[in-house]
Amino acid sequence: MNAPDPRLSINQATIKHADLATALRVTAEAGVRAIGLWREPVQEVGLRTAASMLTDSGLRFTTHCRSGFFTMPEGPARRASVDDNRVAIEEAATLAAAGAEGSTAILVLVAGGLPEGSRDLVGARERVRDAIGELAPDAAAAGVTLALEPLHPMYASDRCVVSTLGQALDIAADFDAAVVGATVDTFHIWWDPDVLSSIERAGREGRIATYQVCDWKTPLAADPLLSRHYPGDGVIDFASLTDAVEATGYDRDIEVEIFNEEIWATDPLIAVQRTAAGFAASVSPHLRTRVAS
Amino acid sequence: MNAPDPRLSINQATIKHADLATALRVTAEAGVRAIGLWREPVQEVGLRTAASMLTDSGLRFTTHCRSGFFTMPEGPARRASVDDNRVAIEEAATLAAAGAEGSTAILVLVAGGLPEGSRDLVGARERVRDAIGELAPDAAAAGVTLALEPLHPMYASDRCVVSTLGQALDIAADFDAAVVGATVDTFHIWWDPDVLSSIERAGREGRIATYQVCDWKTPLAADPLLSRHYPGDGVIDFASLTDAVEATGYDRDIEVEIFNEEIWATDPLIAVQRTAAGFAASVSPHLRTRVAS
Repeated sequence: MNAPDPRLSINQATIKHADLATALRVTAEAGVRAIGLWREPVQEVGLRTAASMLTDSGLRFTTHCRSGFFTMPEGPARRASVDDNRVAIEEAATLAAAGAEGSTAILVLVAGGLPEGSRDLVGARERVRDAIGELAPDAAAAGVTLALEPLHPMYASDRCVVSTLGQALDIAADFDAAVVGATVDTFHIWWDPDVLSSIERAGREGRIATYQVCDWKTPLAADPLLSRHYPGDGVIDFASLTDAVEATGYDRDIEVEIFNEEIWATDPLIAVQRTAAGFAASVSPHLRTRVAS
Repeated sequence: MNAPDPRLSINQATIKHADLATALRVTAEAGVRAIGLWREPVQEVGLRTAASMLTDSGLRFTTHCRSGFFTMPEGPARRASVDDNRVAIEEAATLAAAGAEGSTAILVLVAGGLPEGSRDLVGARERVRDAIGELAPDAAAAGVTLALEPLHPMYASDRCVVSTLGQALDIAADFDAAVVGATVDTFHIWWDPDVLSSIERAGREGRIATYQVCDWKTPLAADPLLSRHYPGDGVIDFASLTDAVEATGYDRDIEVEIFNEEIWATDPLIAVQRTAAGFAASVSPHLRTRVAS
């Protein structure tokens, strides 16, 4: 087996059932250079320990996943969410500092769905903008980029009221590009008739915080959250999307983040190796730039 | 129980397990004035008989559902699809002529998904435009309006490569508005950040062939095709969407089309009555115009 692409980063969700130690170990063992972490397994061992484990792994840190969920109206739940987002910002900064050279302090934000009983999608979206306005000074102070992630419209009601990259960019536009960017995830935006022009715009505006790849295949899993696949196993045209991202000058790591029961049931080292193989076949041929290896 | 809204039309799919005779009977019995039919139950009795049954029912005919499915490249399958679409155009014209005064000769078109093994979404969309170009002269000659229906992006790969109303309008723009319009279905487009401006545009360009309502609720059904609900049972804001449609001057019938195993298992008369009640509560308050009753 060839060495994995030096720009590949394994998002920890791809091997969800591995604890942090295992995730770091198998990622490094597979020859992958970078990892994106999730808050829960980090908190399980504690931030300080997690940072130290990350340093020892020699891996670059690419993103911290994930925070957000701030569509609710003002009140204690909204305050708790903002406070928790501030904790996540600190976590992202700490982990990025602990990762190998080339690590990036990026916190992925998922907006959240419609509040219970509400039909006011427009209002929920405005509250996303408001929350980011509250968090931006903290992120700036910590040197963290908030990466607002549009999610596929099938999640618009219960998970994320931000459904297109264009919409994420419209929200980000109110803020400094070093502080608020967007997550460009192929699974969520591949269907969008404006996807290529939105990627071009995101690049022009300096907003591509992270590029993430996984594939779309039908029939969808019964739980549509778990319907993500290895790159190449579905119908997404990684050539045109990756070309568009690369054309903006994006030259950082690219995460593969897969939620899939079957992949989660796979031995995590094998899952990482398969991810690397899918990436090499479907994404690597379209990369213009490579990190120093 | 109050009389159903005079602008309500029952799309036959809502009571899928009823044959044509039953569908016509329960719709009329519930006091509903209009119906949209599906090709299969019409073909089951034969077009001439179906037309005669429709005339006898006294109901208006609103749409014929559905045709399209022409994303495949040139070849026998594409020729068969175009030929079948021509048959559907004739059916729509015949049924509209057989329905009560105020009937509309509208054929709903669903584009189709990516051809097997293809990742070329852009090409598939262009083939939709090409097919409509072939069919438009037949539709014009028959006095039928082709109502291209954007489907929710969760169906983009396997059912419909046209995912937004704006995209449908871009395709329709090549053709006479009397011949090619769009289906505006709340379930498919409610999440779109551009939905209100796209409806305004559709009205301005004379392209709202039919307005259809049903609701969105999570969790989605395991088969996402069957996840449609009675108006009012989910999270769609029928106020803003219906206001936008009405503001364009749309004053025709409004269909409720629901695919839902539980509703299909309901006695069809009761399902029609519940549909009428949901419509009265969620949609009627936002209607400016009423058909003569």
